[in-house]
Amino acid sequence: MSETAGRGSASRLHDQLDHIGELLRRVRGLGQLPEPDGDEGFREAQARLQALLDALHPADIATILEALPLVDRLAVWQRVKADRDGEILLEVSDAVRESLIADMDEREILAAVEPLDADELADLVEDLPTEVLPELMASLDAQQRERVQAALSYPEDQVGALMDFEMVTIREDISLETVLRYLRRFDELPAQTDKLFVVNHDNLLTGVLPLHWLLVNSPDRPVSEVMAPDVNTFHPEDDAYETAQAFERYDLVTAPVVDGSGHLIGRITIDAMVDVLREESESEALSRGGLREEEDVFASVWKSIRNRWAWLAINLVTAFIASRVIGLFEGSIQHLVALAALMPIVAGIGGNSGNQTITMIVRALALDQITPASARRLWRKEIAVALINGVVWGSVIGVVAWLLYDNFWLGAVMTAAMTLNLVLAAFCGVGIPLLMMRLGRDPALGSSVLITAMTDSGGFFIFLGLATLFLM
Amino acid sequence: MSETAGRGSASRLHDQLDHIGELLRRVRGLGQLPEPDGDEGFREAQARLQALLDALHPADIATILEALPLVDRLAVWQRVKADRDGEILLEVSDAVRESLIADMDEREILAAVEPLDADELADLVEDLPTEVLPELMASLDAQQRERVQAALSYPEDQVGALMDFEMVTIREDISLETVLRYLRRFDELPAQTDKLFVVNHDNLLTGVLPLHWLLVNSPDRPVSEVMAPDVNTFHPEDDAYETAQAFERYDLVTAPVVDGSGHLIGRITIDAMVDVLREESESEALSRGGLREEEDVFASVWKSIRNRWAWLAINLVTAFIASRVIGLFEGSIQHLVALAALMPIVAGIGGNSGNQTITMIVRALALDQITPASARRLWRKEIAVALINGVVWGSVIGVVAWLLYDNFWLGAVMTAAMTLNLVLAAFCGVGIPLLMMRLGRDPALGSSVLITAMTDSGGFFIFLGLATLFLM
Repeated sequence: MSETAGRGSASRLHDQLDHIGELLRRVRGLGQLPEPDGDEGFREAQARLQALLDALHPADIATILEALPLVDRLAVWQRVKADRDGEILLEVSDAVRESLIADMDEREILAAVEPLDADELADLVEDLPTEVLPELMASLDAQQRERVQAALSYPEDQVGALMDFEMVTIREDISLETVLRYLRRFDELPAQTDKLFVVNHDNLLTGVLPLHWLLVNSPDRPVSEVMAPDVNTFHPEDDAYETAQAFERYDLVTAPVVDGSGHLIGRITIDAMVDVLREESESEALSRGGLREEEDVFASVWKSIRNRWAWLAINLVTAFIASRVIGLFEGSIQHLVALAALMPIVAGIGGNSGNQTITMIVRALALDQITPASARRLWRKEIAVALINGVVWGSVIGVVAWLLYDNFWLGAVMTAAMTLNLVLAAFCGVGIPLLMMRLGRDPALGSSVLITAMTDSGGFFIFLGLATLFLM
Repeated sequence: MSETAGRGSASRLHDQLDHIGELLRRVRGLGQLPEPDGDEGFREAQARLQALLDALHPADIATILEALPLVDRLAVWQRVKADRDGEILLEVSDAVRESLIADMDEREILAAVEPLDADELADLVEDLPTEVLPELMASLDAQQRERVQAALSYPEDQVGALMDFEMVTIREDISLETVLRYLRRFDELPAQTDKLFVVNHDNLLTGVLPLHWLLVNSPDRPVSEVMAPDVNTFHPEDDAYETAQAFERYDLVTAPVVDGSGHLIGRITIDAMVDVLREESESEALSRGGLREEEDVFASVWKSIRNRWAWLAINLVTAFIASRVIGLFEGSIQHLVALAALMPIVAGIGGNSGNQTITMIVRALALDQITPASARRLWRKEIAVALINGVVWGSVIGVVAWLLYDNFWLGAVMTAAMTLNLVLAAFCGVGIPLLMMRLGRDPALGSSVLITAMTDSGGFFIFLGLATLFLM
């Protein structure tokens, strides 16, 4: 039970992390000494490490494993009691999970996943080595196997892949007294149970009975009179992120999942939805900057390179294009070398401003706050902001350029170029995410790289172009 | 009850948003026609709009208000039933809340906040006009007033500001039967109640009793035998984000808040924690790019400018410094104008790669995965990644530069400069967030602007410096 986990503040975990690291170093150092010198201290350090790990909640062990470099991580992993392996594997990130499973043999893997439920198994299956799958599936009973297969049949971002099957169902024609008697036959209700699901004889969901209503109402009343008939139900094909947003909006703890004809087939719980919300915002942050997926900070050099190379390559192409734009104006630069020094200012401010706009628009799109009707209004607003910022900041930097190079017209070109590039940044900052959305792509994906590409090439072209027209 | 809200999928909300916008336009258009032409249609559209709004859950109305431009937003707000105003104000973002409150008179504000609990009131108080506060505080009873003041005494990011007071407490020396009888005297238990808090006669928390344990155990057993003695308790001074992470780790729904001597003073619920998790990741995304706070997408031009100017100004300074670095080498550029075209590639790739590193480190710091011992290892790893990327991509672009400008040594300088700038990006990408952390600052704050400043100025200096040394 989570209630036995004690205070879980991050600072406490941090202390334990330091402590574990220290014990690991002692165990390793002492293990290399000749006996009997190191023997007693070695055993003592071993025992203390083991006691510390045994007292930790699986979720805390997962956090600690994430924060340890690979060697220490595997040393801790080998010391964790086998019956908790499965739970811990569920808690860690994909990257860390991979490193842990790579360290286990077939027998250990089968033992680890044995205590898990069907939906949890389905989460792990794709990370397990294919050799163990036949034996694993054979060890399940028919119902379990069917549920694992059902969960696997939905993509990861649909409710069907995240639902569990631990719901307590009751009939609507019985009394609350009977429900109370029925519940007393359980040893424990499934975690997070805050409501019972009411079904008819066809297993059609007819309502829900929150546990507190069961408690505050008189036991002689029938379920049908007390239950809430209309519920927040979800379908296995529903989008996981939208479902998580509904959990957040309506403060749900659990909700039933029904098939197309209304039969109850599973339930969704808040803890799965909190994970979805966190993963969504994380992957938004990562994909904006061009990281392919969540990266284990202690991943190998080689893995990190593979995770990051794609966007670096794209960036190389966009930088090369910007470079060719400058190449078009080499004559002008040769003539007035100040242009080379000033052009990165125009590009840089445009990039910064465009990134501010695009961050806000991506966020608003994720929260579903933008309709086609309001898009035009946003464009107008962002372009107005850009015009004002361009005239104000462009004038500041224009005056500085004028004084620095003693050339009034160079300052004027600078002001005009900055204003135009900020307008371009605003236009693309609203337009790129909307276009990505219309094309059915994730609007966050590489948005920062794309807007910077536009404001770099655009900024160089505008500034050098204006300079060539008016200063040569 | 949230159970009556129906399917809350985002796409359904989106349809309703369109529908409301259309009705608003019709009402507005028809209202301008001379009667009786517009009269009947006007009344019908009015009635349909009202019926639609009355059927929506307060959280859905909040979402819709966020997505409407100011004029439409206020038109909807005036049509929302007054008894739901308070709940809706709690759900909307700070920026939208401000715009709604600005539209209400004193009487409306007092009526809106009247049904709220102490902790909810405390959330709103700082956004209310100061004129209404004396009357508002006078309308509360002594206990309410004390609770509002207690909640206001904690900063927004501490548990004390987020806890509520709706906990059900029981004594440990009674039987479960007595507890069941006691609960039946309630009309309804507080929302999210998943456990009862067990206190002794001094109001010291001695344990918790999850509702399901109350249901599955025999009614004659005493509370003391069934309850969990050790609990996840929090203190009002605890950091809200760390508490939210504990909720996520241990799958909590509610948890007790105790003072320094262990007296029960309030409770924390999962819905408040989900908000904390979302706000944290949002503000991380915003502050990285240099937006001061969550910005209402439909905010006025003037507000947007104020929200964004600070980082634009900082960026202007860093861009100016980079420009002066280039200015140092104007002689070299005049001599070999290809340098001007190639230098943005060196700076740009460095910025992209540095942003990848810093994004990952900021994330890992937020999740508390980095210790001083592991920092050095991260540096080594990131610098290794940079060296390899530099040699590989630097060679690619070096060969391109060689062929393009028919100058082997120019290509060689390009390769060397790219490698060095990527190493600089890796060094700063790890170092900047760690330094910000050590200085007690938020490591996400402006991290993108800072790293880009380093890789721009650094990249220009390295490339033009090497070119001056070896090519002139």
